[in-house]
Amino acid sequence: MKILHGGVTAPIGFRANGVYCGIKKSKKKDLSLIVSERLCDAAGAFTTNKVQASCVVVNKEHLRDAKAQAILANSGNANCMTGEGGFENTRAMAGAAARVLRLRKKNVLVASTGVIGKPLPVKKIVEAIPDLVKGLDRKGSEAAAAGILTTDRVAKEMAVEFRIGSRRVRVGAIAKGAGMIRPEMTVRHATMLCFVTTDAAITAAALRDALGRAVERTFNTITIDGDMSTNDMVLVLANGMAQNRRIVEKTQEFRIFSKALEAIFLQLAKRMIRDAEGATKFVEISVKNAASRQDARAVARAVAGSNLFKCALFGSDPNWGRIAAAVGYAGAHVDPWKMQIYLGKELVSKNGGRVKKKAAILNRIFAQKNIRVTVDLGVGKYGATSYTCDFSTSYVRINSAYRT
Amino acid sequence: MKILHGGVTAPIGFRANGVYCGIKKSKKKDLSLIVSERLCDAAGAFTTNKVQASCVVVNKEHLRDAKAQAILANSGNANCMTGEGGFENTRAMAGAAARVLRLRKKNVLVASTGVIGKPLPVKKIVEAIPDLVKGLDRKGSEAAAAGILTTDRVAKEMAVEFRIGSRRVRVGAIAKGAGMIRPEMTVRHATMLCFVTTDAAITAAALRDALGRAVERTFNTITIDGDMSTNDMVLVLANGMAQNRRIVEKTQEFRIFSKALEAIFLQLAKRMIRDAEGATKFVEISVKNAASRQDARAVARAVAGSNLFKCALFGSDPNWGRIAAAVGYAGAHVDPWKMQIYLGKELVSKNGGRVKKKAAILNRIFAQKNIRVTVDLGVGKYGATSYTCDFSTSYVRINSAYRT
Repeated sequence: MKILHGGVTAPIGFRANGVYCGIKKSKKKDLSLIVSERLCDAAGAFTTNKVQASCVVVNKEHLRDAKAQAILANSGNANCMTGEGGFENTRAMAGAAARVLRLRKKNVLVASTGVIGKPLPVKKIVEAIPDLVKGLDRKGSEAAAAGILTTDRVAKEMAVEFRIGSRRVRVGAIAKGAGMIRPEMTVRHATMLCFVTTDAAITAAALRDALGRAVERTFNTITIDGDMSTNDMVLVLANGMAQNRRIVEKTQEFRIFSKALEAIFLQLAKRMIRDAEGATKFVEISVKNAASRQDARAVARAVAGSNLFKCALFGSDPNWGRIAAAVGYAGAHVDPWKMQIYLGKELVSKNGGRVKKKAAILNRIFAQKNIRVTVDLGVGKYGATSYTCDFSTSYVRINSAYRT
Repeated sequence: MKILHGGVTAPIGFRANGVYCGIKKSKKKDLSLIVSERLCDAAGAFTTNKVQASCVVVNKEHLRDAKAQAILANSGNANCMTGEGGFENTRAMAGAAARVLRLRKKNVLVASTGVIGKPLPVKKIVEAIPDLVKGLDRKGSEAAAAGILTTDRVAKEMAVEFRIGSRRVRVGAIAKGAGMIRPEMTVRHATMLCFVTTDAAITAAALRDALGRAVERTFNTITIDGDMSTNDMVLVLANGMAQNRRIVEKTQEFRIFSKALEAIFLQLAKRMIRDAEGATKFVEISVKNAASRQDARAVARAVAGSNLFKCALFGSDPNWGRIAAAVGYAGAHVDPWKMQIYLGKELVSKNGGRVKKKAAILNRIFAQKNIRVTVDLGVGKYGATSYTCDFSTSYVRINSAYRT
């Protein structure tokens, strides 16, 4: 598998663009478009929040035939909890893009991210679409990646190339994250956004299956602040222009494609954590020897989600007692006498107590930017990994003044 | 019901004291003792965290006969995840107090709060007990209330008097809170601590029942940071010295006693929120018309626990969209089209969208120190209330440097 430049425009037949249409006060890019030359097999994974933005609901309708050709996304406004008018605006966005692109409306997918509950300035979006389309470019991924950012500091793009049979195929993606991040997406149903393009030929069923697995093992394992968004989504467009033999499920080719998708998602998920609101640390929580996979995930997520542990991380304080407390309230089968906790490679707790280590050693581990915590539950054979960041005074500042 | 001064020493026959024994770097009081003249009927409610401090485990043993006469509590060290040695130290604390007080060891209950995973300096505690006992006083509640504090800014005491039949009985309590607060206590099983004394005569079964109900409706409805402690506990001692006819379950007297206990707990729970680490706002979340009581509680807790909502509170930003998002991920039956959200008395959201209000009105509500949020789910008839505070830069600072 080879890393390529070019994000969503690395695969054959995709163009993209991003412009400022007037939503963001910062006057940064706030409207992005990705378009394929040909109609694509398409799949989506969406938030499981019961309050869902109109773009989530409308995309599910548009994906009923598992076909799409374009993705239009705005940042700065989530168009969620905006009533019937919000739905009309989402449809108006799709409709306006479809008209200018000469596509059927149902083949345009829509995504929004930003403030909840504020009417979307749809007129600005509709008026910007002709210029947005005019600027579509085979090298437009960077502009599109910029147009979907909210509090992110850096744009997130990735693309890879690998072989399916005798053919080289490419998968590219752009993503945004930063806050309100604790995705639990299911296929058919992340405000993380990730848009994926590929020139691989793959059946809609195989695409959906690959998407579901990859999301579960990557985006669904991260948490920044524990708040699940109303707008999270991952959309994949596959236009088949690499001319490989069409990938179907349960084949070697499917496994290769799935692995590539998972690798891209894991990289992007990690970059979201590194670019999380106010984050200064990147933390990997590995849980081992849990009684069930569900237990392993629950424990990894509880530790990753502990505000107290995350404050200790910010303060570079190796306070592993807060890890132990979070393990205990995860709802999993836990026996403190069998549990072992490692900070980096240092065993700090076993037999229900501490393993004495020089404070300097632990302080050094927690002073690093990349920290690995391992919790060995010692009661089974299942594992899980979760990724998180520290909880900083900057996070609070960013989110206490998000709308102002 | 009359409010009294005197906390845990307001009821007849109780003395208390608090001293500095050498645990806290700040040299503030860190060891407290409450003693009854007579053996008491006793009950406890304890954390449901699966990692439990040795004091939690030992108290459950000591309460098997539902009798106790003294409570010894230290702050500055949680004596949790301290291995076998931690258990020995808890027993040594009980034993040392029992010797000096001439009680049976099993009639001494023990509580600890502070850092997890650090050996308890039990020698300092044991050596301080003679002076601690010498200073026991009928007006010692204030000193005892001070001795159990960690990051709390103010001591929390309360006492009431009411009639049972022809007799006046009294209930007094002291409590601490501030951080690692999301109690889920069950009877037999918060690091919130609350110690209650009463001179009412009441059966052990009635005492336990009253305690369980009151905890469920008060302490278990609050959250400061979402981290459930390993050491949370509420202990009640009833010495019967008011000479009322012994209260049994399912009587008018039981209801009066239960109501008094609940009133005290609710006051103390609210004071914990007001004194929460870094808190600048007190927030009451009322959920109405949920499909089940469990749903109502889940929604109230999800909103109360949302980091993003709590940051908005800190910033006085009436960002109700974050409330809607939290309602949506609570796991309850939610229909956004039927949901109504009120900030104070202002309806801000209905029919899946916003109700336009002047920004100045909403800003004024969120600028206040006391904020009430109501979520009417519109799908049933069940309600619940949760109490929380904002999430401030001070909270992060306090908890990033807790051990230093």
